[in-house]
Amino acid sequence: MLVFGIDCGTEVTGFGVVESDDSGRAPRLLCRAKGAIRLPKSKTTAERLLQVFRELTRELELWRPEVVAIEGVFYSVNAKSALKLGQVRGVALLAAACQGLPVAEYAPLKIKSSVVGYGLAKKEQVQFMVARLLELTEVPEPADAADALAVAICHIHTAQTLILQGAR
Amino acid sequence: MLVFGIDCGTEVTGFGVVESDDSGRAPRLLCRAKGAIRLPKSKTTAERLLQVFRELTRELELWRPEVVAIEGVFYSVNAKSALKLGQVRGVALLAAACQGLPVAEYAPLKIKSSVVGYGLAKKEQVQFMVARLLELTEVPEPADAADALAVAICHIHTAQTLILQGAR
Repeated sequence: MLVFGIDCGTEVTGFGVVESDDSGRAPRLLCRAKGAIRLPKSKTTAERLLQVFRELTRELELWRPEVVAIEGVFYSVNAKSALKLGQVRGVALLAAACQGLPVAEYAPLKIKSSVVGYGLAKKEQVQFMVARLLELTEVPEPADAADALAVAICHIHTAQTLILQGAR
Repeated sequence: MLVFGIDCGTEVTGFGVVESDDSGRAPRLLCRAKGAIRLPKSKTTAERLLQVFRELTRELELWRPEVVAIEGVFYSVNAKSALKLGQVRGVALLAAACQGLPVAEYAPLKIKSSVVGYGLAKKEQVQFMVARLLELTEVPEPADAADALAVAICHIHTAQTLILQGAR
């Protein structure tokens, strides 16, 4: 299974491609790609959204994942920040829809508990576990890419759990 | 000048095309088109955003306006609603950017004062004045289309004011 994770942000949007390799005795997770789209403040909002859309579309066409995983709607930010974040999130969802890809959304608590084991884990703990699960020698940089890989891992773990539950 | 106004909403997104005809003695405003994109609740968020993007793109390609006018960021809604509205708004801004069109944003107060004469006008007053300014026999339906026409009128009025100021 090849999963494309996206971590939306108004200044930086991270992405990460994770593959689950079930050919061996123990399933392995592989980091196939990671990166971040940085949006210069000098551009207009519309130009920034166009940049996010084009870069995400290019990566999706390149990697052809089976599914896009993205952090679900959360409520802790204020309305102004939420609207700006929503604009980027809308464009990310559109990029997936334009490629005909299904989108899986996961709440922040679910992502943390899926990667670290408990939902109130700190950001650094999540990044450390992302590196460990993907057998990377260093924590993925930038943090936005690590967060995107975390969402992708969350999807794979959730899918594997569902398969195990179905097999019982 | 041909202006394409958009009124974003999570359930209905209105649009309206207004042309300013300066050929006569007094400048006239003409409603060239109006409509609303209704998003069925049965669809996923990504599918709904794809629908908004495709329908707006089709209208923009059809009318080829010089500019897109849209209500600016406002702060009165809660964070959850703001994020959902932001997703639609992001896709609308992207549709304009994909066509290489400039986007003009206007605050709700500015739109009301530009159409009715004062910023705290009621929604019904704005719709009544939209019909009057566009020489329509009835208030444009649905309300979302009337709101989109109001943003477009606001842009034309603002541009005309700037031209007058420049001529002095």
